[in-house]
Amino acid sequence: MAERIGKRSIMLTTPVSVKAAAGVGGHKEAEGPLGSCFDMTYTDDRRGQDSWEKAEGIMQNDAARFAIEKSGIQKNDIDLMLAGDLLNQCMSSTLGLRSMGIPFMGQYGACSTMAQNIGLAALLCDGGAFRNVMAVTSSHFCSAERQFRLPIEYGGQRTLTAQWTVTGAGAAIVGRGGNDCFIKGITIGRMTDLDVTDANNMGAAMAPAAADTIGAFFRDTGCSPMSFDLILTGDLGYVGSDLLKELLIRDGFDISAVHEDCGKLIFDRKKQDVHSGGSGCGCCASVFCSHIVNRIKRRELKNILFAATGAMMSPTMIQQGESIPGICHLVHITAQ
Amino acid sequence: MAERIGKRSIMLTTPVSVKAAAGVGGHKEAEGPLGSCFDMTYTDDRRGQDSWEKAEGIMQNDAARFAIEKSGIQKNDIDLMLAGDLLNQCMSSTLGLRSMGIPFMGQYGACSTMAQNIGLAALLCDGGAFRNVMAVTSSHFCSAERQFRLPIEYGGQRTLTAQWTVTGAGAAIVGRGGNDCFIKGITIGRMTDLDVTDANNMGAAMAPAAADTIGAFFRDTGCSPMSFDLILTGDLGYVGSDLLKELLIRDGFDISAVHEDCGKLIFDRKKQDVHSGGSGCGCCASVFCSHIVNRIKRRELKNILFAATGAMMSPTMIQQGESIPGICHLVHITAQ
Repeated sequence: MAERIGKRSIMLTTPVSVKAAAGVGGHKEAEGPLGSCFDMTYTDDRRGQDSWEKAEGIMQNDAARFAIEKSGIQKNDIDLMLAGDLLNQCMSSTLGLRSMGIPFMGQYGACSTMAQNIGLAALLCDGGAFRNVMAVTSSHFCSAERQFRLPIEYGGQRTLTAQWTVTGAGAAIVGRGGNDCFIKGITIGRMTDLDVTDANNMGAAMAPAAADTIGAFFRDTGCSPMSFDLILTGDLGYVGSDLLKELLIRDGFDISAVHEDCGKLIFDRKKQDVHSGGSGCGCCASVFCSHIVNRIKRRELKNILFAATGAMMSPTMIQQGESIPGICHLVHITAQ
Repeated sequence: MAERIGKRSIMLTTPVSVKAAAGVGGHKEAEGPLGSCFDMTYTDDRRGQDSWEKAEGIMQNDAARFAIEKSGIQKNDIDLMLAGDLLNQCMSSTLGLRSMGIPFMGQYGACSTMAQNIGLAALLCDGGAFRNVMAVTSSHFCSAERQFRLPIEYGGQRTLTAQWTVTGAGAAIVGRGGNDCFIKGITIGRMTDLDVTDANNMGAAMAPAAADTIGAFFRDTGCSPMSFDLILTGDLGYVGSDLLKELLIRDGFDISAVHEDCGKLIFDRKKQDVHSGGSGCGCCASVFCSHIVNRIKRRELKNILFAATGAMMSPTMIQQGESIPGICHLVHITAQ
């Protein structure tokens, strides 16, 4: 039975862990600092498909298959898949996972989807009726750009606050028991909207949500930032990370010494032209499911917060003059 | 602790119920056979807004507010909202619910969203850490038509297999304990794809998924169709309902005597020009959250299955020649 602590946080009382995880990335991600951490990278970002959307679907499928292989768990022993993505009607999750024959519930948390999926998976496994639940998500630079901003072929100049949507996917199998990578707690985010209307400044739209959720976790649990090896956000990028730290300091929490952001980790800002860093559901999913889970399993990280942020933005909303709400879901993970 | 029965079904062991529910509908829905059952109907389907998308958002907000009022539960005692809709990036859920300040997890199950939300809400409440979870969803004829098919102004002729997207929303507050409307079990759907590519024949795309889930429930639990007062699907319409009954008979289950479909109930086929019936997330949501919950609370219905179906269709998928996977989530509800 999970227990509520404080106003918004939940502590798991039974051992539930990330049994195995896998991350895949595109060619630009392969050239970045984490290139060697991924389970698979692609030289062709179309992945042999005739559209970017289909390619993104196959990448979800690749990540899911790798995670299953690494876990040693049979597909039949996975009771549920929780998956979603940025595309209209979560199209790449549908395309990529429909052939698997596993019960499926579509999730939408924009770029926060991976933490939403892992948190929900952990709650369901803790509840007793699910043995293993798979959390999957993806994004693709080309499918996202043409859907959310401008056609790739247009070659429009990007603003310096813009983030580069990661081409990649991540899959994590969450299950009861395990040896490491235990999910200890969850704080579910609220939509936070400070009237940002710039679709090229997602960091600013998401930072207040991250501050709201991370602050709630500290208040609920009484933990301080320094109790953690790593407070990992995804994907605030450079602009949003600075804003988050500033907002949390006002709230009495200084996370600077232990904060990292998946959007900053995945690309080399000096060599790769990504402006404010990486973004997209696939950013924190691929980073968390490869680099971070590997570091936890090697005991290099023992106590971390994974707080994934999403900008609940739709081009139709922007066209209709609406501001962009942000959301952030947090998962507390320990090595033992 | 929830328990797994058979391969795919879950039985709840603690009492969890629909505490209160509310459904709202547009002007066409008001003129239909269930017009008087809704908590609110609109003469203006724009609901005073300058776009249909915003109107749909406000309808979700209306339904949510009515459900909270009827339940007598304080907003602060609702630990989570699960909401989603048909619009790109679940835009009307975001617009409609962002001001509520309640933790939020976006869901996407196309027209099956209401059953997905209620099922998930019940599992989370059963798990112990959630007192009350609100399930919300909506659809709007005008926002759906222009996004999925043709601009309304085009006035295109609709095929006879086409369904009419319901303008409406539903909200249900699921919580621990209660006096009636208990959620006893859940069967989570799998994506089922029999190569239907016609965006104007959603019934055919969804019927195999409904047969798969309902059949799984009967096999898992050993129950027969005649144990139920009502097996309610939503929203297969006329074409899909006939296909479902045919598919289930092949599987050894005859549901004809107790089957109804929300897409058939909500409109008067003879007087209202809706071809194969109603559809959209708001169809089964508004019917279930008003008419059906009222009938259970009046003890007119004592043992029902609510099996909501979704066509995981995106216009981009259709343009790229992909077929439409269907999904169906089932919730077993009893009066006592």
